[in-house]
Order: sequence, then structure tokens, then C-alpha cells
Amino acid sequence: MSIQPHAESTYTPSHACALSDVPQWDLEADVVVVGYGAAGAAAAIGAASAGASVTLFEVASGRGGTSAMAGGDIYLGGNGGTSAQRENGFEDDTEDFYRYMMMAGGPDADAARVRFYAENALDHHRWLQEQGIPYRTTHLPGKVMAPGTGDCLIWSGNEAAWPFRERAKPCPRGHLPDAAGALGGGGRMIVDRLGDRAEALGTDVHFDARVLALVADEERRIHGVVVRSEGQTRFARARRGVILCSGGFVLNEDMLRLHAPQSLRLADDALSAGHDDGSGILMGQSVGGAAIHMDELFVTLAFYPPSSNVKGILVNERGQRFVNEDAYPGRIAAQCTRQIGNRIFLLADHATFEQPSELSRMEVAAVGGTWAEVEREAGFVEGTLVHTVEVFNRHAARGEDPLFHKAEEWLAVLDEPPFAAVAMHPGEAFYPFFTLGGLRTRPTGEVLDLEGEPIAGLYAAGRACSGLPRSAEFYSSGMSLGDCTLFGRLAGHTAAGAAANGENAR
Amino acid sequence: MSIQPHAESTYTPSHACALSDVPQWDLEADVVVVGYGAAGAAAAIGAASAGASVTLFEVASGRGGTSAMAGGDIYLGGNGGTSAQRENGFEDDTEDFYRYMMMAGGPDADAARVRFYAENALDHHRWLQEQGIPYRTTHLPGKVMAPGTGDCLIWSGNEAAWPFRERAKPCPRGHLPDAAGALGGGGRMIVDRLGDRAEALGTDVHFDARVLALVADEERRIHGVVVRSEGQTRFARARRGVILCSGGFVLNEDMLRLHAPQSLRLADDALSAGHDDGSGILMGQSVGGAAIHMDELFVTLAFYPPSSNVKGILVNERGQRFVNEDAYPGRIAAQCTRQIGNRIFLLADHATFEQPSELSRMEVAAVGGTWAEVEREAGFVEGTLVHTVEVFNRHAARGEDPLFHKAEEWLAVLDEPPFAAVAMHPGEAFYPFFTLGGLRTRPTGEVLDLEGEPIAGLYAAGRACSGLPRSAEFYSSGMSLGDCTLFGRLAGHTAAGAAANGENAR
Repeated sequence: MSIQPHAESTYTPSHACALSDVPQWDLEADVVVVGYGAAGAAAAIGAASAGASVTLFEVASGRGGTSAMAGGDIYLGGNGGTSAQRENGFEDDTEDFYRYMMMAGGPDADAARVRFYAENALDHHRWLQEQGIPYRTTHLPGKVMAPGTGDCLIWSGNEAAWPFRERAKPCPRGHLPDAAGALGGGGRMIVDRLGDRAEALGTDVHFDARVLALVADEERRIHGVVVRSEGQTRFARARRGVILCSGGFVLNEDMLRLHAPQSLRLADDALSAGHDDGSGILMGQSVGGAAIHMDELFVTLAFYPPSSNVKGILVNERGQRFVNEDAYPGRIAAQCTRQIGNRIFLLADHATFEQPSELSRMEVAAVGGTWAEVEREAGFVEGTLVHTVEVFNRHAARGEDPLFHKAEEWLAVLDEPPFAAVAMHPGEAFYPFFTLGGLRTRPTGEVLDLEGEPIAGLYAAGRACSGLPRSAEFYSSGMSLGDCTLFGRLAGHTAAGAAANGENAR
Repeated sequence: MSIQPHAESTYTPSHACALSDVPQWDLEADVVVVGYGAAGAAAAIGAASAGASVTLFEVASGRGGTSAMAGGDIYLGGNGGTSAQRENGFEDDTEDFYRYMMMAGGPDADAARVRFYAENALDHHRWLQEQGIPYRTTHLPGKVMAPGTGDCLIWSGNEAAWPFRERAKPCPRGHLPDAAGALGGGGRMIVDRLGDRAEALGTDVHFDARVLALVADEERRIHGVVVRSEGQTRFARARRGVILCSGGFVLNEDMLRLHAPQSLRLADDALSAGHDDGSGILMGQSVGGAAIHMDELFVTLAFYPPSSNVKGILVNERGQRFVNEDAYPGRIAAQCTRQIGNRIFLLADHATFEQPSELSRMEVAAVGGTWAEVEREAGFVEGTLVHTVEVFNRHAARGEDPLFHKAEEWLAVLDEPPFAAVAMHPGEAFYPFFTLGGLRTRPTGEVLDLEGEPIAGLYAAGRACSGLPRSAEFYSSGMSLGDCTLFGRLAGHTAAGAAANGENAR
């Protein structure tokens, strides 16, 4: 509400600087982008391609953000399929793609955003390639997470898992760039290639530059930012618009506590390159922007590879199954964190079990020659674990899972001793997470206020806003980077185009 | 952010009216209270008792709000116990009371608020009596909901249920006024007696008066409200402060969708007297107030009385138990809404089952002479329901429930045919709910901004703010009315006291 003068040291994201308090513009550009992850790089390209001059501020000393920690798959499909899909025999109908993405969006999926994404995904794939990101057309079947082989197409979500497969024809849609190195290889390449392109188009990049606050006039129009760099507080004018691409708030403990306190017990596993402090969301709110779905997280659990672990069964501390184990690990992790009682176990037999990567922090809790021995050793109530395994095995032998409809290829009778219960409790096993809540935006990137009206001159993309993925339970890998890059581009375009209307001219 | 002039018809809660745009003050008071439920009435008394003149605007044609629909129990205890507790043999230690309330607050319980409440609960009980609310000292044991008998003390939460009873010594703490009539009898009496008192102290009450927006100056100080009444748009000056007591947002479908979309399938069961439209929360946000825990709901499920139903067991559509059935129904309802699959059943035998009230909308789904027959008829996977009942019965016969630690008095072997599965699916059975998220406040009622700093001249109490109860899973009956009345009083005191500092003088 208030636009108050601030002493230099007191600028904060939560208080916009009044235009009338700007002593001078130290820098000027048509568009100012805040943050240099995938969303920021795409926004810079989008704006520059539309003829705007772009200045980008990044708080770190190099580009990448949390995007560069990602495996790098981007969720693509529809329109008959990408080349990788088609060459591997997957025809992906736009309506199936749309329906799946709407499920993935949760109960408040943004239909306009999902529709735009579904219809433009192939175009977007071409665009990514045009920016210099190479893709093979190879497919890795089965359960794969960031394989680091340079292969392209993977199953990256719940498409083939119940109940999703009944509502949209399953198709693999995770598209990895041809990059070596597993975690971070693909994400790093994407940001680097987009960054190279943004810079080739003339983006003026400032590293070690912390944006402190927005600059707004009395009619709430955004005119620029206050930025701290090279030991100075500077005022950067954005003639056409500011685009917030500064990430989520997984490192802001206060915001986690006030909006998603159930995540605090996972806080050591926050997935961030170090700057997801929620400052972009606070800046948007400081000028009346609405923040929505602030309780929602992406949270996952690396219980595979090896994918044979998917043939195990997951139980809570009462020995009950609670999810189909072939679901996306994000859905599994969301369910794990909701069980009453703190203990979760993966049950596996000699035939299926392989030690997961050290990253997972999973430890074998009990081993036995019979399931009854495991039951006793791990402290389950007599008969409970044995019953769960008996029901599962009885049906698995027939290729069925009437309780959770796990797909046949992941069904195995767990009858080869020794048997094991592997501990994977939230707060102990590795549950990496980041935040999905943020500013309310139009697909164009325009930040909306509490009444759903746009705030002139203000845009957001990536995890500073609540985008395509809005739900811990339904997330699929590749949706956040897909959202960052496509809607980052669009926000850049929109911000650049605003100039034509002279809307943000002083 | 913006303080823009508005045409008369365009004032909205989300946009504050600029002080400079106020043509004249049509009314003036030291303190303006918005909303005439329990919080508003208590706030008016608190302010008037401190010497302030008070004007109260209520959008409905009479007082009551959603408070008047409540059974009327107020959560009280600690300090050795209320008279009702002591006379019935319950000594309630303040630290047990505090620990229980901290659990009930969820992972972001407000320790300062809980501490203040725990230490002042007996004083508050005295105060309620001084306002004219009569209490007996009788105790109704067992599982009781709004009995309407005029008896006082009831078990109204999870105190005696696992795991709560292990962390704080159990004690009944729901205190009902001596009012006839079940639902609404007690809540109606509380609002009426507090309202009578507020009016006796000179509160100037305006019914059919919709507060449209706050009036704020450029430094974000609140000076009054814009209110629509008697066909006119009027400007009411609040010399010392405005107190928002306008309830939650359970009737605002947009806000539900953007913050708690999982509740939309229950939307027909919204618990509201008709005006919980979130306008107070939006008004607070319009001047920079933070809204927190906006995803949290109170939701419940009236599967008793008759309390013998608590001896039944609850299962999801896989025939698995998922909660101790003697927990507070709010905890049960929260768990019901989180199960994968849409069907929930209460299993009961001839000895335990009685048809719940019509209100519950529970229907018998299957009946059989054996549990295997019920299993088949209701479509459970063979052996699953029978196993669940077998494990339960085997332990119940020994007075034990190793899976969920249901208390012994609610354990019964379910072995007397006929057996029944009663459907209680979310979206079908009656799941009344209201919202718990709202403005961030200090215990004093001061509304806080995104940085945790108070907004001068603005206060809130009741469900317009996130108060004592912050979690669907841990709510206990009487906590919301307790919060409304004690912190309503305190907000009134604080707002009135602000005058001494001349802080809000123009």
C-alpha cells in the first residue's frame, strides 16, 4: 500500500520504492529481467526477439539458478508427437496431452495456460532446438531419472500409472537434451544455451546484482527496480516492464512456516542453487499481486534407480500399502508425507532389491527368511505385513493389483528370500523439494492483483509464479522447466510488446 | 499499492480508498468494528470498556454471524481447572493445556498467542460470565456434540485420543453455556449476551451495512472505512482503529479455488450464516496485510451421535483403517479427504450400530451375516475387509488397538451379526467446513504486513485472521469461539489504547 521513502539500506522486496523517490536512473532498458535461470533466460530471449533492449540482474555470480540443478527434461508432446515420440512409435494426441496436464495441475489447474501449452508444445520444442539445445530422438524405456546418457525421451510422470492412464492415453513426454552427466547436466545445458542466445541478442547481464525492490508510481504502475551491485544501490528503469524470474521460496524459512509448515521437517532437503528466497513473490505482493497455492510443493523421493525397486511394495508403519509404486515418485512422496505415523518402508525380495543410490539415504531396517520374520524384526503388528504381502502376491501372480492397479510390468511376486524392509521415512530418507506456489499470472506473464486485474508493467515466470504444475500429488518431471521456458518466452514477448501501447512510458 | 479515487460503485475490499479521496466523514468513532459475530461483539466490548466510542457495521440484518450457528462450546482450562473441571474431578495444568493447544495449532502454532490464551483462560471464563453468559458446572462424559441440554463440560477434541493423550494429560475443556437447543443454541446465546453488553456500553450498531473498503493514507495508516448502508455510500472515521471481525472465506469460491481447491468438492457443505466472503481478509491485504495458512480448513463429519458408532471402525475403499475412530471428527474428516480413492465406510455390528442423525447423510451400503458377505457386497477385494476386522477384533478382545491406539472404552469386538458398511464418502456424506486461513496478526490483534510489521490502525480477530486453530487435522471444538472472544476482546482493548498514543489522530 504505502510507497514510502527508504533509507538506502532499508529497501526490501516487501516495500516498493516510490517512483517519486528515485533520485536518478542509473541504468535503463526496455525490459528488466530478475533472475537468470531457465525462466529468466527465456524471458530475455523473448523480449529481445521482440525488439526490446533487455537488462538482466542475477544475484549469483553466474547463470543457472536452480534450473541448472535439474536433469533437464522438458515436458513436451501432443499434436501427433515430437520427432522423438513418433520415431519410437508414440502418437501423442493434443487432447490426451491436455487432459493429462490438467490432471497434473491439480484441482485448480489453469485451463488457459494448459491449453496454450498443449497446443504450442511442438513449436516450443523447435524453438528450444533453434536456441542451440541439441536433442536426439532416442527413447529410454522403463523407469528412468536423469540418466545422463544424452538419450532423449523418457517416461517422466504418472502417465502410465493408475488412475491417470484411464483418463488420458499414456505417452512418454520427458525430453532430455543431448547432454552428458546426470543430475544437472541437462538443466545446465538448457540455461547455458538459452543464456548464450540471450546474450547474443544483446541482453545486458549483471551478476552479483541483488534486486532489492520494485519501483512503482502512485497508480501502481511498475517503472523499474532498485538493485544492489558493485557496492552501490542503483535504480534501473524498465521502460516497458519488469519480469520476475527469481524462483520460489524454498529457502525462506519464514515463508515456509507461514504457508507450508508441513515442509519444515524436510527443510534440509530443500532443492535450490542458493537463492530461492521468495523475494520475487514478495516484490509482486508489495504492489498488490496475489500469491496463490502457497502451500503446494514439489517433493520427491529417489527410491529408484535401480528401477527394479519399483517392483517392491511401499507400506506405512501399519504395514498397509498406500499408493501404486509405479506412480511418479512425487506422488509417492506426497503420500508418504501424509501417512499417520512417521515410518515408511519399501518391501523387497532378493529378486527385486538392489541398493538405491547413496543419495536416497535409504537403509535396510529389517531382513528375514520369511515375511513373518521381517514383520517381527521391523516391529509391525503381527499378521499385518504378512497379510499385505499375501494379498499383493496372490494377485501379482495373476498379473493384477486390485488395490492400486499397479501396471503389470511392475508386478512381481515377492517370494524369493531373503526379504527386506528398507526404511524411507520423511525427515530421514532424501525428500528433495521446492515450492510451487507463487504469484498469480496470466499465461502472458502479466501479474494479477487480488481481483484478477493485471498490474501494469509487471510480469513473472517460473517458480516465482504459480504456473502449470500446482500440486505435489500430480507433478511430473519436465513440467516446471517446460513452464519456465515457454511462459518465460511469452512473458518476454508480452513485456516487450507493451511498449507499442506506450503503456509504461513515463 | 495504489490509492486511487473510485467512483462510488467501484469500491471493493481489495482496493483501499485514499484518505485524500474522502469527501467528508459521515460518521465518526474511536473504533470501528466490522462484523457482529462473537469476535465483533467481543471487540466492541473490549474497546468500549477501555473508554473508546465504538461503531459496529454488520452486513446482515441482525447479529450473530456464523458464530451463532455454533454449538457454543468454548475451549477453556489450565490454571488448575475451571469450576466445571474441578467439580468433576479434572485438575487441568496450564502446561498440559498449553501443550495440547500447541499441537492443535499445527506445525505453525503461534506460541505467543497460545501462551497468552493458556494463562488467561480462567480469567476469560470469568469474563464471559460477567457478560451475562450462564454456565452450569455439570459434565457430560463420553462422545458428545452440541447436546443442547444446558450441561457445561464436554470432551470436545482429541485430548483423550492417541497420540495427543501421550503428550498432554487429557482433560475435557469444551465449556457450553446453559442454553437450550442443540446446534446454534449456545453460539446464539454467546453472541446475544455479548451483543447486549456491547450495546449497553454504547456501541453504535448499524445493520444492513456492508463495509466496502478501508480508508488509508499514503503511509498506510488506516483512518476508517467506506460503508454502504441505507442506500448510501458513507465514510466512517475510526479515530483509533478499525477491527476486522468479518469471518472467513468459505463462501468465496474464487478464494477457495486459489488457496484451498481441494475443498471445492465439499462446497455445498460450507458452514456459514451467509456472509463469510473473505472481504475482511481482502481488505487487510489491500493495505499490505499478510494472509497466511490460506489452505487450512476446519472440516468435520457428524458420524456420531449416537456415540456407539465410535466403536465401529473406519476403512477406506481398500478396507484399510486409517485413523483412530475416537479422534475428534475433524481429524477424522481431514484423513477421510486425504485417502486415495473416493469411498469411506464405517463398519459396525448389530451391537454398536445406530443410525446417525439425518444430518450426516450416511447410508448403509452393505449388510451381511458375516464380514465376508459385507466385503463382497460392498465390493472390497477379497480378504481385505475380513483381515482388517480380524486384526481389530483379535486385539479389541484384549482391550488393545496396536495400529491406532484407540482408547479402550471405545474398543468393542465387532462380532454380532448383522454387520454393516455405512457409506461416508467426501462429497456425499455431510462434511461441514469453514476456513482457518486469514490475516497474520499479533495476539493483540494488530494486523501484520509481509515483513511482520504492524499496519497502524488495523486490527483483526476471529476467522478473518489465522488464529489459535490453524490446522484441519488438529482442531478441537471450542477453539475458534475461544479465539474469537478472547482475542476479540484484546483487539478491542488494543485498538482503544492506541488512542492514548494519539497514533491514529489525524
